[in-house]
Amino acid sequence: MTIEKALVVGTGLIGTSVALALREKGVTVYLSDVDADAVRLAGELGAGREWTGEEADLALLAMPPHLVGERLAELQKQRAARTYTDVASVKVGPIADAERLGCDLTSYLPGHPLAGRERSGPAAARADLFLGRPWALCPGPETGADAVRRARELVALCGAEAVTVGAEEHDSAVALVSHAPHVAASAVAASLVDGGDVALGLAGQGLRDVTRIAAGDPSLWRMILGGNTRPVVAVLDRIAADLAAAASALRSGDLDVVTDLLRRGVDGHGRIPGKHGGPVRAFTVVQVVLRDRPGELARLFNAAALAEVNIEDVRLEHSTGLPVGVAEISVRPADAGRLADAFRFHGWHVPPVH
Amino acid sequence: MTIEKALVVGTGLIGTSVALALREKGVTVYLSDVDADAVRLAGELGAGREWTGEEADLALLAMPPHLVGERLAELQKQRAARTYTDVASVKVGPIADAERLGCDLTSYLPGHPLAGRERSGPAAARADLFLGRPWALCPGPETGADAVRRARELVALCGAEAVTVGAEEHDSAVALVSHAPHVAASAVAASLVDGGDVALGLAGQGLRDVTRIAAGDPSLWRMILGGNTRPVVAVLDRIAADLAAAASALRSGDLDVVTDLLRRGVDGHGRIPGKHGGPVRAFTVVQVVLRDRPGELARLFNAAALAEVNIEDVRLEHSTGLPVGVAEISVRPADAGRLADAFRFHGWHVPPVH
Repeated sequence: MTIEKALVVGTGLIGTSVALALREKGVTVYLSDVDADAVRLAGELGAGREWTGEEADLALLAMPPHLVGERLAELQKQRAARTYTDVASVKVGPIADAERLGCDLTSYLPGHPLAGRERSGPAAARADLFLGRPWALCPGPETGADAVRRARELVALCGAEAVTVGAEEHDSAVALVSHAPHVAASAVAASLVDGGDVALGLAGQGLRDVTRIAAGDPSLWRMILGGNTRPVVAVLDRIAADLAAAASALRSGDLDVVTDLLRRGVDGHGRIPGKHGGPVRAFTVVQVVLRDRPGELARLFNAAALAEVNIEDVRLEHSTGLPVGVAEISVRPADAGRLADAFRFHGWHVPPVH
Repeated sequence: MTIEKALVVGTGLIGTSVALALREKGVTVYLSDVDADAVRLAGELGAGREWTGEEADLALLAMPPHLVGERLAELQKQRAARTYTDVASVKVGPIADAERLGCDLTSYLPGHPLAGRERSGPAAARADLFLGRPWALCPGPETGADAVRRARELVALCGAEAVTVGAEEHDSAVALVSHAPHVAASAVAASLVDGGDVALGLAGQGLRDVTRIAAGDPSLWRMILGGNTRPVVAVLDRIAADLAAAASALRSGDLDVVTDLLRRGVDGHGRIPGKHGGPVRAFTVVQVVLRDRPGELARLFNAAALAEVNIEDVRLEHSTGLPVGVAEISVRPADAGRLADAFRFHGWHVPPVH
């Protein structure tokens, strides 16, 4: 192991989660933050101990994009670590700042773990936040081999998958798959502000899904969007133009334009990799009608275990004010019939498996 | 029970699901569809038997909005039922058609169950599709008391919650909470069509959520949007204008405009009722790190049952290619500590409960 001591600068959600992951692997972790309370809380959560100037193998800068360059320069001046990386969700700006401030670019490998939560701060941190998630690494022409090696090791220690990508390509990519969709979700959610209670009462899971990310912290997203304006604007312009064209076509009764957008939407949706990464694994869903009483799920999963069926995913659908719910249990297609039979044998109602 | 015999005209997802729900309650169900295969399949699924002209207490018209008026006129001419309702997702157009075609409006109560799936056709039907979901009923000035009574009974038999609302208010409401968000999701998804594989590989759950409904059937949505153009255009115009303004503000560096949109998005998101209907019930989430092996969930839920904790919701987070996952278990706040202790006692790793 070449990372024995790590310094985490910025003990928010991401920094503390990295610290917790490293602690689980036995790495010594030092913590630093402008907010002393955040360092104390992260320390109490087991993320490491307060940094008092010790030299680390790797320093992780976990702060908003516009602060990375300046802090990197300071840390390098202090010789805080042998290798530096950051987690800012945009990359071109921080790299330009680092160059402008005369930072040593051989020891700095810009990075960005694609993981997060709607909640922020050290209390929301979890060691497994990065498990199986992509972690972009953006080496430049000056990046040294040691920096690459240590940054890749950091990614591996966090259980993430390293994706090497140029900084400009990275910023365009996150504009497309994260930043512009966030603004679009905010615009849909904003349209609800003046909606009547009856209208909102007719809302379903679809609306909840479309607007979920709109609950994110506006001040954090202001910084993210402000650090990636050109790529975000390019995507937003296309989305806004598509929506304006759809509205105009609907107004004039030209439904073909709308249908074309809906079709492109189906195609675009199909390009998103599955939840498990890579191609979508095809599971079959077995539905079971549950009663809302203690032990019901235990009985259900016991029945699955007895049938020797491995459950890949579970989704519970509760019903408004009713003491029943539906469990949707994803299993390998070959197991679905056996599982449905087992549930029926134990007395549950199982709708036909499709 | 006043609905002893029901006629379902149109055995797609919604019609067949209603039929299945009524069959579970012992109602005799007759099935009719222009597609003989669809009727046969629905019958095989247990949804009822083919209609050969029997008179029903209630006829449910489950077909696209633009076909409702004409079909209603035909069925009334045949004296197919004593009461008629429909499930079209827009209401003003079908009612206007019915008036224009001289239908008897005393026996017709327009309706719309707010439930659906991305899949369509009778094979995707489920008796519990409407459990706890809102079901809009739009009585007009001529609607008779019998029609109201039977339509409300239908809603109750399906386990749904009747919401009485005027037809115009209904159409504006679904434009806001369903139709315009669908177009917006399609526009976000459409922006992905030309994205590179690296970019799509950086996609996360947020993008999947925003675009999930964009996978819906374009020809079905063409009809829905085409039947509700004015209200949908009104919402789309606002969303498109917000996005265009955000893009323009980002271009000129005016981040306050963007922050205002993000803030309004947070407010609008907060107006959506919780998953369980009504105000969001506050549950505490207990996380457990799982291994991906048969029986793991059974052991987990046994431990919860032994601790006498009722599980309100479960969410599994699998990791790409890794043999571990995280279960997020929602319980009443008072139970969280006891459940976490129980899991730890049985050897699971449980991160601190926040």
